[in-house]
Amino acid sequence: MNRGFASDNNAGVHPRIMKALADANSGHCIAYGDDPYTDAAKEQFGKLFGECEVFFVFNGTGANVLSLQAMTQPYQAVICADTAHIHVDECGAPERFTGCKLLFNPTPDGKLRISDIARHLHGIGVEHHAQPHVVSITQATEMGTVYTVDEMREIAGFVHSNGLLLHVDGARVANAAVHLGVSVKEMITDTGVDVLSFGGTKNGMMYGEAVVVLNYALADNFKYIRKQGMQLASKMRYISAQFGEYLKDDLWMENARHSNRMAQLLCNEVQTLGITVTQKVEANEVFAILPPQAIEELQREFFFYVWDESRNEVRWVCSWDTTEDDIERFISLLKK
Amino acid sequence: MNRGFASDNNAGVHPRIMKALADANSGHCIAYGDDPYTDAAKEQFGKLFGECEVFFVFNGTGANVLSLQAMTQPYQAVICADTAHIHVDECGAPERFTGCKLLFNPTPDGKLRISDIARHLHGIGVEHHAQPHVVSITQATEMGTVYTVDEMREIAGFVHSNGLLLHVDGARVANAAVHLGVSVKEMITDTGVDVLSFGGTKNGMMYGEAVVVLNYALADNFKYIRKQGMQLASKMRYISAQFGEYLKDDLWMENARHSNRMAQLLCNEVQTLGITVTQKVEANEVFAILPPQAIEELQREFFFYVWDESRNEVRWVCSWDTTEDDIERFISLLKK
Amino acid sequence: MNRGFASDNNAGVHPRIMKALADANSGHCIAYGDDPYTDAAKEQFGKLFGECEVFFVFNGTGANVLSLQAMTQPYQAVICADTAHIHVDECGAPERFTGCKLLFNPTPDGKLRISDIARHLHGIGVEHHAQPHVVSITQATEMGTVYTVDEMREIAGFVHSNGLLLHVDGARVANAAVHLGVSVKEMITDTGVDVLSFGGTKNGMMYGEAVVVLNYALADNFKYIRKQGMQLASKMRYISAQFGEYLKDDLWMENARHSNRMAQLLCNEVQTLGITVTQKVEANEVFAILPPQAIEELQREFFFYVWDESRNEVRWVCSWDTTEDDIERFISLLKK
Amino acid sequence: MNRGFASDNNAGVHPRIMKALADANSGHCIAYGDDPYTDAAKEQFGKLFGECEVFFVFNGTGANVLSLQAMTQPYQAVICADTAHIHVDECGAPERFTGCKLLFNPTPDGKLRISDIARHLHGIGVEHHAQPHVVSITQATEMGTVYTVDEMREIAGFVHSNGLLLHVDGARVANAAVHLGVSVKEMITDTGVDVLSFGGTKNGMMYGEAVVVLNYALADNFKYIRKQGMQLASKMRYISAQFGEYLKDDLWMENARHSNRMAQLLCNEVQTLGITVTQKVEANEVFAILPPQAIEELQREFFFYVWDESRNEVRWVCSWDTTEDDIERFISLLKK
Repeated sequence: MNRGFASDNNAGVHPRIMKALADANSGHCIAYGDDPYTDAAKEQFGKLFGECEVFFVFNGTGANVLSLQAMTQPYQAVICADTAHIHVDECGAPERFTGCKLLFNPTPDGKLRISDIARHLHGIGVEHHAQPHVVSITQATEMGTVYTVDEMREIAGFVHSNGLLLHVDGARVANAAVHLGVSVKEMITDTGVDVLSFGGTKNGMMYGEAVVVLNYALADNFKYIRKQGMQLASKMRYISAQFGEYLKDDLWMENARHSNRMAQLLCNEVQTLGITVTQKVEANEVFAILPPQAIEELQREFFFYVWDESRNEVRWVCSWDTTEDDIERFISLLKK
Repeated sequence: MNRGFASDNNAGVHPRIMKALADANSGHCIAYGDDPYTDAAKEQFGKLFGECEVFFVFNGTGANVLSLQAMTQPYQAVICADTAHIHVDECGAPERFTGCKLLFNPTPDGKLRISDIARHLHGIGVEHHAQPHVVSITQATEMGTVYTVDEMREIAGFVHSNGLLLHVDGARVANAAVHLGVSVKEMITDTGVDVLSFGGTKNGMMYGEAVVVLNYALADNFKYIRKQGMQLASKMRYISAQFGEYLKDDLWMENARHSNRMAQLLCNEVQTLGITVTQKVEANEVFAILPPQAIEELQREFFFYVWDESRNEVRWVCSWDTTEDDIERFISLLKK
Repeated sequence: MNRGFASDNNAGVHPRIMKALADANSGHCIAYGDDPYTDAAKEQFGKLFGECEVFFVFNGTGANVLSLQAMTQPYQAVICADTAHIHVDECGAPERFTGCKLLFNPTPDGKLRISDIARHLHGIGVEHHAQPHVVSITQATEMGTVYTVDEMREIAGFVHSNGLLLHVDGARVANAAVHLGVSVKEMITDTGVDVLSFGGTKNGMMYGEAVVVLNYALADNFKYIRKQGMQLASKMRYISAQFGEYLKDDLWMENARHSNRMAQLLCNEVQTLGITVTQKVEANEVFAILPPQAIEELQREFFFYVWDESRNEVRWVCSWDTTEDDIERFISLLKK
Repeated sequence: MNRGFASDNNAGVHPRIMKALADANSGHCIAYGDDPYTDAAKEQFGKLFGECEVFFVFNGTGANVLSLQAMTQPYQAVICADTAHIHVDECGAPERFTGCKLLFNPTPDGKLRISDIARHLHGIGVEHHAQPHVVSITQATEMGTVYTVDEMREIAGFVHSNGLLLHVDGARVANAAVHLGVSVKEMITDTGVDVLSFGGTKNGMMYGEAVVVLNYALADNFKYIRKQGMQLASKMRYISAQFGEYLKDDLWMENARHSNRMAQLLCNEVQTLGITVTQKVEANEVFAILPPQAIEELQREFFFYVWDESRNEVRWVCSWDTTEDDIERFISLLKK
């Protein structure tokens, strides 16, 4: 299938990751993570984030749900934007596995404001109400926008001063860091995030995500949560080897920088054509309004999703492997 | 690390599987399984098992737990052997996610008898008791033994005549089929199994297992169960491509045939040394009693697990990549 | 403590119910519901609702959660108003026990409109999204308003034509029926409700609610759901005897008629004083805006709750035992 | 229905409890436990047990399940006898709501020995295995036997020295205390029990049990667990008033002393007839072997349950209201 703009999950695996998998495929390794590839990858995470505990899991939903499980008791609640992946794209897994209620707000751009959080902070100590305990934000958001470091710090401060914890769904955390031009340590560790779902799959890996626990106390029993949560890989070395390569020489940043740049290019080109782009393009996604007939014609050659049918809003996602040529061809088609 | 006898999960990935992964790594594919690799792999399953619905998941615990979820309501119970992986090696995931009680019996060889099932069939219709609804057996068992086709048929008949359903944990189903010299259709479909967890990882794959639903009605909502169960891979093609190669030209049978043969060789060699082998060797595992000091010395060079410390019983597992030379070196060491 | 307007849960038990309890306290009865009191009470429900299955439980949260459990699979979602008791007053029990997501909307008066339901009916058949399967409305609502029979019928029709089920939280169902001047058969059975939580405690009983299953198929396994849901009373006769008396000679309607009338009186009196009543008074609750200092002074003598601090909105609830004199004294105090 | 020997749940409510309910039925009380009856009853518990936190719930299954919920994380396991109510009579509610695995052993008399516990203490720290964290014993047991104070202390010591917690299902705790001739403080608090399910219903109350938390840390969030667990009574005063009377002037001990004495009498009488009594009669239950035809004839006049059909073992339970005359009539019938 041709490269399209449907999802960064549709892209393949970066050649360097493929090679790392092949290189790891030699001899025996103790299963379940007691192997040198895993040790090495964890060490790399330590260099990136400072002191932390890292647990590799299979996928993004697993990373998010297990993170929340480690941060909550079932009578608590998780506050998020109503566009949050944990709310709209995980088939209710967070509620099902944590037992917690999700409290959500509409936001114009996928970014939760302090006021969005504050309005849920009532009934504290009253047993009739699920007790807010975690705020979960997505960085970069599902709308392709990015919290600034100051915004992150402000949210973390507000969250902690109210006795809550902060989770970040970082399925596209690399795209956010590249956009802000800061390290993940500055963006995540130093702003006060408690637990991060660190994505790999959307940005050039085959499978595998990491739960990065910066608030150590929350890591104590995580190994049981992961195993009971069906997210412990037996042949762990193949996730670890991917992460090892992914983090080496900033491959992960390079991939994100590329997909961000492609999205920017796409945005510029379509705006030139007079098309309305509905969200700031700060990561690798572009949201735009198209005439309905144009949508169908384009989709025949380049698959992508309609985001909001009622207003003919579409979503285009660029990947690590999107080329300028892909965009040129897409724009040419669009011109017609 | 050297090849040892600790676990077939410690082995690497078969070169043909590695190549299939590389071959699948081209262009874009729709995520989550709507891709030609997945279609092709499903078709191969259809050829093997006859009509069935197949769902790929990440790992064995996921396959087992989601199978049971599809077969039960939370007020029901699952009957199994007390050596069953679902009982002893999944950190309580089956109870946690299905809500069901596990009812288990000791067995001499990991094989559940009709009488082991029958003793739990009381209190039927009485709301105080969790209602037995599924019997789960492992083929080949965790003790390296294999149910005959007649035994499978007899169990399935008993299970169904009592209004229950039959699940098979087939993490090593290939080893069982090879041992019996029958097709999985004869062993699984034709004997009346309702749902099978079909293993790939222990037998030469990198990751990925399949839930094979032979009782179609149980497949209706499985896609939601898989997604909510955190077992839906975004880049599904890489699981499907593995299965495609795994099932092609009987690679999976070849691998199992090899590991079974290696286990048989190991068994024969250690028996020649006067060592007691405690279970019939019908698949790729050998259980034996060793003098305690021998255990420690051997473990220094060949890692393996002590199964039952109280009686110095050890478990050795052969893999698709175990060589005759590995066994010779191991036996030499043992002789000392 | 003096009678106040805080909650109908603060009221005592009607003398006729107390007498029925005393009368039932003779000799032995088979536990768990196999007794003549339970048979008789079920028969009375049959007369009220037409053919139905009835299950007695301990409390309203139990009735609601078990009703939803009987109507859902964990990957589904329940649509409700954002004032719904199941959403705001059950500490997340519905999510915890059903595994389902709750989808909620703000409404001006606690009543869900067709459009509030319709906006959640997307992503149907798409496994990433929790599948809407139940609509839960409250009759009378938590805001003291009442759906008309036509509104009920319209909602039920819409719900069913979309393949969903309709649950009614009837903690104050008697107040609604009295307001509409119709039988519960007309209001509930004939409009197409699938399952009703039928309240008793708020309207003069000591404890005990009933789950009335009008869609029989949903009753099949309810006895297990109730037992596993910790809501099966051992000495069931004492719940049944209460319901027997409650339904006899329309005691339940009388009690509701009285509390509705008291609420109407209270409403009229405060409006005469120029106080803004914020919701239609159709059941036994009055919502009003008071000056902040008046709130505190009143609360010293008559306890009640502030509903919305941001706008000084208070809630007053009348009970089966509220007297005209209570209201006169309250109004006198208010005048000061 | 005549008084029989089927269950202490079949008995009625003690007249003093009925009177206490009537006395509490005056005026309004704040709902959900913020009332003087509840304060007073809690104080009485404090006098009985020493410092503790007490939470009233509806029934025994609720008390047990919520106790376990407060003591566990879902990846842990609970060790119990295979006759334990939590294992055989709660329809899997403990697994369903705590997520934990139950590990159980056969015992000759319903009493768990240190060795029964010890055999489950392996795999500690290994994430593949549900981690044993609570031992739950029943006092008096479901077999009518009683742990001595020394046995309780020994179990508690063993449990704690292994980092586990001790739960006691005290549905018949009064019968045990009476048998041992000690206070519950000596039997429960001083031996080191962490959480007790304190029964009332089987011993003369209408409904209501208490969770007595002696290990304070475990009480911190219990109010949320109770509410989310659907066990928070709105009109709490009626449970509290019952407990107030139940504990006053040792009514609860009197009732238990009576039912124990009746069981002893019944035991002596049937043994005189040459009938084999299969368990020590230390509480209010008698287990005996009867000829099959005698069972049916007796059941026509006095309802009771067959415990073990395979050996014609029956169970007779005496209640607070069993009379010597009941026993004489039963024995006369038995003689025939």
